[in-house]
Amino acid sequence: MKSIIIGVAGGTGSGKTTLAHKIIKNFKPDEVLLLSHDYYYKDYENLTFEERAAKNFDHPDSFDTDLLIADLIKLKAGQEINHPTYDYTIHRRSNWVKEQPKRVVVVEGILIFENEQLRNLFDVKIFVDTDDDIRFIRRLSRDVNERARSMESVINQYLTTVKPMHDRFVEPSKRYADVIVPEGGHNTVALDMVVNNIKNKLAE
Amino acid sequence: MKSIIIGVAGGTGSGKTTLAHKIIKNFKPDEVLLLSHDYYYKDYENLTFEERAAKNFDHPDSFDTDLLIADLIKLKAGQEINHPTYDYTIHRRSNWVKEQPKRVVVVEGILIFENEQLRNLFDVKIFVDTDDDIRFIRRLSRDVNERARSMESVINQYLTTVKPMHDRFVEPSKRYADVIVPEGGHNTVALDMVVNNIKNKLAE
Repeated sequence: MKSIIIGVAGGTGSGKTTLAHKIIKNFKPDEVLLLSHDYYYKDYENLTFEERAAKNFDHPDSFDTDLLIADLIKLKAGQEINHPTYDYTIHRRSNWVKEQPKRVVVVEGILIFENEQLRNLFDVKIFVDTDDDIRFIRRLSRDVNERARSMESVINQYLTTVKPMHDRFVEPSKRYADVIVPEGGHNTVALDMVVNNIKNKLAE
Repeated sequence: MKSIIIGVAGGTGSGKTTLAHKIIKNFKPDEVLLLSHDYYYKDYENLTFEERAAKNFDHPDSFDTDLLIADLIKLKAGQEINHPTYDYTIHRRSNWVKEQPKRVVVVEGILIFENEQLRNLFDVKIFVDTDDDIRFIRRLSRDVNERARSMESVINQYLTTVKPMHDRFVEPSKRYADVIVPEGGHNTVALDMVVNNIKNKLAE
């Protein structure tokens, strides 16, 4: 069995996760696996909660990308993986999850095209491109409404780490994409194109 | 017979024509038709050569876009068209060419997403995005080596009309694209994706 690995990147609030979910809905559960780079956040077990919460979650160094790379290489070789998950509420690595290799593996994350070794593992690299103001508005709404954060804390985190890291690492990684999808989640033509392409590759 | 109409836009030197040609090579000659918006440059028969040559060829008003729209509507309805061509050496409309309707119609041009009525005729809208400096270098090489223009005249035309029109009309039309393809002609993953998508639509 040969796996097709699709990378879906884009800034916070770009709609990349929505697009990734819409892609996988077109395949049977036993055909497709969705992995998030966020699962692989590093586990700073020796730090206090405050120290962990103050980490820069938008910097490439916050991710255990080597582990994601190792897992994708295993999946490509038809081997089972055991991947971590991450609990945002306590900022710690959470339970580990066993997954069988699948024919289609979709990986999503803001920084998945930034690391050259990871980037080279993708058969198709999709970058979801959305205006910065719309992205901020979505993040603000999500964090205030779903994560009980204050408007001020969201703005502060956005200006101190999210935006600088976006401009430094996320936006420049766009040039490695094979296709750039404007306004990911609601773009049915692009979704159609991506899904048809995977289906044709599966039929080869 | 239902036709699929694909639009390939992008600035001068972006690689859009190369991508359009690579797309059509994946289909049999009786399946596919390539139309260039440039074929539809207006014919100013009452102007002198110098007056015609001084026209702004990068402004939407330089194109008989209504005629292209009428031709695409005919092709969609399964009717033959008789389209103009354009002779750059004399800046006049050249001979007319009869074309039968085909299952796949690829339209390429810098401004094909700028006009709303034209834009709405495309089933898939692809924008080829290439760095401005690379685009200028390609245009310079082409015009100096293949069209016997001087470096100064290319620079002058670029700064006075090509770039201002690009910034005013071409770049803003990118947001209407379904997918944006970085460095069009050499991006095999994107080409593959576009071709597979057309083939799946044909099989529907």
